Amino acid sequence: MWVELGEIFNRLSLDPSVRAIIMTGAGDKAFTAGLDVKAASNGLLSDGPITEPARKAVHLRRHITSFQDCISAIEKCEKPVIVAMHGFSLGLAIDLSSAADVRLAAKDAKFAVKEVDIGLAADIGTLSRLPKIVGNFGWVKDVSLTARIFGAEEALRVGLVSQVFDSKGDALKGAIELASLIASKSPVAVQGTKEILNWSRDHTVQDGLRYTAVWNSAALQTKDVQAALLSGIQKRKPTFEKL
Amino acid sequence: MWVELGEIFNRLSLDPSVRAIIMTGAGDKAFTAGLDVKAASNGLLSDGPITEPARKAVHLRRHITSFQDCISAIEKCEKPVIVAMHGFSLGLAIDLSSAADVRLAAKDAKFAVKEVDIGLAADIGTLSRLPKIVGNFGWVKDVSLTARIFGAEEALRVGLVSQVFDSKGDALKGAIELASLIASKSPVAVQGTKEILNWSRDHTVQDGLRYTAVWNSAALQTKDVQAALLSGIQKRKPTFEKL
Amino acid sequence: MWVELGEIFNRLSLDPSVRAIIMTGAGDKAFTAGLDVKAASNGLLSDGPITEPARKAVHLRRHITSFQDCISAIEKCEKPVIVAMHGFSLGLAIDLSSAADVRLAAKDAKFAVKEVDIGLAADIGTLSRLPKIVGNFGWVKDVSLTARIFGAEEALRVGLVSQVFDSKGDALKGAIELASLIASKSPVAVQGTKEILNWSRDHTVQDGLRYTAVWNSAALQTKDVQAALLSGIQKRKPTFEKL
Amino acid sequence: MWVELGEIFNRLSLDPSVRAIIMTGAGDKAFTAGLDVKAASNGLLSDGPITEPARKAVHLRRHITSFQDCISAIEKCEKPVIVAMHGFSLGLAIDLSSAADVRLAAKDAKFAVKEVDIGLAADIGTLSRLPKIVGNFGWVKDVSLTARIFGAEEALRVGLVSQVFDSKGDALKGAIELASLIASKSPVAVQGTKEILNWSRDHTVQDGLRYTAVWNSAALQTKDVQAALLSGIQKRKPTFEKL
Amino acid sequence: MWVELGEIFNRLSLDPSVRAIIMTGAGDKAFTAGLDVKAASNGLLSDGPITEPARKAVHLRRHITSFQDCISAIEKCEKPVIVAMHGFSLGLAIDLSSAADVRLAAKDAKFAVKEVDIGLAADIGTLSRLPKIVGNFGWVKDVSLTARIFGAEEALRVGLVSQVFDSKGDALKGAIELASLIASKSPVAVQGTKEILNWSRDHTVQDGLRYTAVWNSAALQTKDVQAALLSGIQKRKPTFEKL
Amino acid sequence: MWVELGEIFNRLSLDPSVRAIIMTGAGDKAFTAGLDVKAASNGLLSDGPITEPARKAVHLRRHITSFQDCISAIEKCEKPVIVAMHGFSLGLAIDLSSAADVRLAAKDAKFAVKEVDIGLAADIGTLSRLPKIVGNFGWVKDVSLTARIFGAEEALRVGLVSQVFDSKGDALKGAIELASLIASKSPVAVQGTKEILNWSRDHTVQDGLRYTAVWNSAALQTKDVQAALLSGIQKRKPTFEKL
Repeated sequence: MWVELGEIFNRLSLDPSVRAIIMTGAGDKAFTAGLDVKAASNGLLSDGPITEPARKAVHLRRHITSFQDCISAIEKCEKPVIVAMHGFSLGLAIDLSSAADVRLAAKDAKFAVKEVDIGLAADIGTLSRLPKIVGNFGWVKDVSLTARIFGAEEALRVGLVSQVFDSKGDALKGAIELASLIASKSPVAVQGTKEILNWSRDHTVQDGLRYTAVWNSAALQTKDVQAALLSGIQKRKPTFEKL
Repeated sequence: MWVELGEIFNRLSLDPSVRAIIMTGAGDKAFTAGLDVKAASNGLLSDGPITEPARKAVHLRRHITSFQDCISAIEKCEKPVIVAMHGFSLGLAIDLSSAADVRLAAKDAKFAVKEVDIGLAADIGTLSRLPKIVGNFGWVKDVSLTARIFGAEEALRVGLVSQVFDSKGDALKGAIELASLIASKSPVAVQGTKEILNWSRDHTVQDGLRYTAVWNSAALQTKDVQAALLSGIQKRKPTFEKL
Repeated sequence: MWVELGEIFNRLSLDPSVRAIIMTGAGDKAFTAGLDVKAASNGLLSDGPITEPARKAVHLRRHITSFQDCISAIEKCEKPVIVAMHGFSLGLAIDLSSAADVRLAAKDAKFAVKEVDIGLAADIGTLSRLPKIVGNFGWVKDVSLTARIFGAEEALRVGLVSQVFDSKGDALKGAIELASLIASKSPVAVQGTKEILNWSRDHTVQDGLRYTAVWNSAALQTKDVQAALLSGIQKRKPTFEKL
Repeated sequence: MWVELGEIFNRLSLDPSVRAIIMTGAGDKAFTAGLDVKAASNGLLSDGPITEPARKAVHLRRHITSFQDCISAIEKCEKPVIVAMHGFSLGLAIDLSSAADVRLAAKDAKFAVKEVDIGLAADIGTLSRLPKIVGNFGWVKDVSLTARIFGAEEALRVGLVSQVFDSKGDALKGAIELASLIASKSPVAVQGTKEILNWSRDHTVQDGLRYTAVWNSAALQTKDVQAALLSGIQKRKPTFEKL
Repeated sequence: MWVELGEIFNRLSLDPSVRAIIMTGAGDKAFTAGLDVKAASNGLLSDGPITEPARKAVHLRRHITSFQDCISAIEKCEKPVIVAMHGFSLGLAIDLSSAADVRLAAKDAKFAVKEVDIGLAADIGTLSRLPKIVGNFGWVKDVSLTARIFGAEEALRVGLVSQVFDSKGDALKGAIELASLIASKSPVAVQGTKEILNWSRDHTVQDGLRYTAVWNSAALQTKDVQAALLSGIQKRKPTFEKL
Repeated sequence: MWVELGEIFNRLSLDPSVRAIIMTGAGDKAFTAGLDVKAASNGLLSDGPITEPARKAVHLRRHITSFQDCISAIEKCEKPVIVAMHGFSLGLAIDLSSAADVRLAAKDAKFAVKEVDIGLAADIGTLSRLPKIVGNFGWVKDVSLTARIFGAEEALRVGLVSQVFDSKGDALKGAIELASLIASKSPVAVQGTKEILNWSRDHTVQDGLRYTAVWNSAALQTKDVQAALLSGIQKRKPTFEKL
């Protein structure tokens, strides 16, 4: 399933008719209750014939890396990804959503960085991304070390989610509104903005500025600027070519 | 104008009689409504004879880089820079203010990372600096991808501004108070603090600590420490030499 | 005393019977009012025979570095460190606590990045760590440049502390609860989580993911996962071997 | 073809029966004379309907990135890769071979960083890897800026290749000997060595040491160490399990 | 003089009629015997009224930084810079030439990283650039710590210079040939190659590849590729537009 | 023994009467034949009661880290370290010497990165430092993956050693000459040069230049500059105060 998730995002990333992506959970109860640990413990942790710790480590590392790549496909996807979460949003819910661009929640959402409770340090992305998206390192340590459940309001307060809605339906509606707004903008501008923000997060300001200058030396040669300016003057909604 | 702005900050940076700098907007309506896009589109985007995309890219890159350098002069200025914003504070207002040290706002301030609305990814500094000064990456993505307007209260909540005042006048008064307080401290301590914080933001904790140790190996050899300690004991206000 | 502090944390880091550490201040008045500046100014700043600035700089740099190493022992300690602060928590209180994992406070806590007031840029860790643990760079600049005192509520709002309690006693009680909760988890999971979060804070997401994969290729080979899963199914509390 | 090359190396990377890989060119005349520029100029450079420079840039960037990924598969391959080059070894020959671990050459090899001669900066890897594998930055600049042809002896002198042989046959023989020698060693040790060297090349010594310690905390738990030590004492050749 | 040097290179960088730059020394005796230490010691080291070490440090740092910027203009110059050295090439000769792209020498050249002999660590660029252009760190340490004089042959052997000529005249001739060859290539390709190599030297391979892809997404849209390919087929010399 | 080695270098680093350090091997046969693998395999690899791979990994990681710290004390030592090697110089000989500043060898020296032969990737420093001190990544890969023995001439050719001498005695004599020469220079200049070169090796040129400027803002305030200049004019040997 995770391999497919990665492939889907790789496809959406290149599909010119896609301008923004919404990820939500099926059903009323949960966005995701996390990894099916029982299945995982059968698969991941007891890979049969290999008993030597060093060789088992190689297999585990390959497994973790390919799992990480699936989740990272969300971050690498050139189109913005909005996640609407509700109900139980544990473990992998945090890995998945922290690789997305904007996180929305229903007020019934219950979050947890659950991995410590099953004896492991979260390794599919949460621990690498959370300190970069939530500027409250003490809180990140707190929830990651205790695996305690926290609600939508707390997630909003610390900045993990951007808005809280009354219900899953409302959260999805909010996500669609946000996605529609983004989709109405120039895709050259939108995709460049996502890319430069992600690059800047991981580099010095100086390297961020340089990368931006090189990026925009091509991106500014778009007709979208003219189209946007003109429609601004003419007070009408511009349309932009696909990308 | 931007070249002059850069030059002014380069001069203030070295002028020993300057201890803190306040930047504010003229008039009641706006800090700045952003780049005059019409002028820009004439100048920047249609540089006449060059039609080949690769060569045009070189000219655009040089143009962006020199524009970035003007704004970066605020960050590189050795003296703290406080920005008081009011009314429309769009586009370049964010580029400018995110290169400053402390941001204050009047409650009528209306902010937006406006660039996506004119078909481009902000390239003068906003996208490189915002993820480093506001620890809420989802919010940064949200406002940068939608170009939506947000008010002073929201800016305060996410940490883009430090205080909100009733009016432009009050914000300026607040800025002057803050600047005066900073100006009353040892300039050796103040300038070192700005520099080390900016360096640390962009480097590992370990590299931050090392840089601090090397910096302070000279800076601690100041008479200001003695002066500060003595006046502390004597309950009087110290005066510190210019720098 | 600081050398001893470092040594204590180095020992606790390796002591298998220790699972979480609480640091608090003695007495009712203060966590710490900071460096005894008078003693410091005798020791640090007037090291007798050496008058040449370049050679004095070498001695100062060595001194700062070894002082930094003492404080960094808190961060490098493999076990989570919780700090409960009350009363005056000035100067070194920020250096110490920002090297810890979670910060709690009593409501009477009074904080300040005090160093600018004694003529120097904080050099034992505050300026390098604060921008990485509080995602509000304007606020960090504000308190570091003004040395102004701020209370527990403000510290909570910006994320410097995670919870505020009515009294020192309650804060300590809160710290013990948090420490006990963490101590009940798998030490393999807990120590890995602390390490990976600290590494990720200072590296790109990509380097964070890679480090996590390599780390967990060994850590997942723990019986704690089985123990945790089993006790989850059996609805009983697991016990985990020391580490 | 390049996609297939990447897939082959991804497969070899995980195939437990593979311990070392040799890459050579078919025929007597050339390792590779580089990209078929005519085909390339049809495909890459004139992608039909898209004429807007900004949108064309997006397509070019995607194309370059996926091409780079194919070549990077050689570097990411967990097993050592040895390249034996002869005759014309231009353009892509340098991209390919600089992603490998060891480069050998027949004395008739004629190398060139050819891209400048077709109007572009080499973008599949040469310019990113050459400064890291040849410690003579002036020479790297010289051959990259002039596209001049240089021979096997010059390549040996600057360290681009490790050995020069009389003929393609001899070079291949040399590659087989080297590969056989590496294949006789513990695959745990060999694969760890490749990985740690590549990581260290791109990180500080301190980050290199840390990564090594974490890596080896699992890798040292191999029976290969015992097997190697024992066979050393017993003066016989050890055999190591596949990986 | 150094300010002027920086300004000249900044101008040459943007002058479309310039395609490559040669730097050489006037007279027969020396490329440069280094800083006029007597003048320097008057200017730099005894800046009169300021006696406090901390404040003097600020002035020295500003002075060093602006001096560094002059030399860095050579590295930042978008056009390749070739240095032909002869006779005494001490101190600043190394700072200057290590910021250039290719270094040539007459056989009478006498080099030294002279700074240790006048009581200081070279601070205008040598110590930062030498470890990146000469892949022999022991040799770099040796000559930097001893300030010993070494000849053209040794410089050639370790890779500091690319070629040694019989006389200054011949070295200059060699430089002109090299410059002419580079000037005959596409300036889009040449300038991109210089930029990407300098970026890659300072970043991971992965960041190098990404930067290259973004850079070339604009640069490949040049008519120079077509021109180069066509003239290759037609066996004639292409001409390329200025840049 | 390794703990003691680290402590010795930490002491020498601060001892003002020490200006340069020579490390050599006792006896005629070997600098060091490497780790006593038998002892090591008893100690390191079979730490008794702990059998769980995850917990054993923690102990191994701690062990490796503290071993690395001992070797890194050579690199961190503020005084230059020269190594004179002869005879068998295997395994740890490379770890030790690559942490030093200059490497000399007798012609009978036989080197090997021996670790692969005992089933492990070298983890005490060789793999992290070799790619940074020898600019021939193919050769580093070759010797690290094959564990083959190579002689002094090959070490000289690739830049691992700086000079080859006829005998151990001569190598030591050469080391003493080099150390004496370095010891005759200003210790402010010498120690600054070592530090800045090591920093620059691991950072971008830009970060190297900045660090240098901050470092020298204190270091230039030494009387050694005047002393050096004066004695240069007066044609006599300067003496410099201890450090």
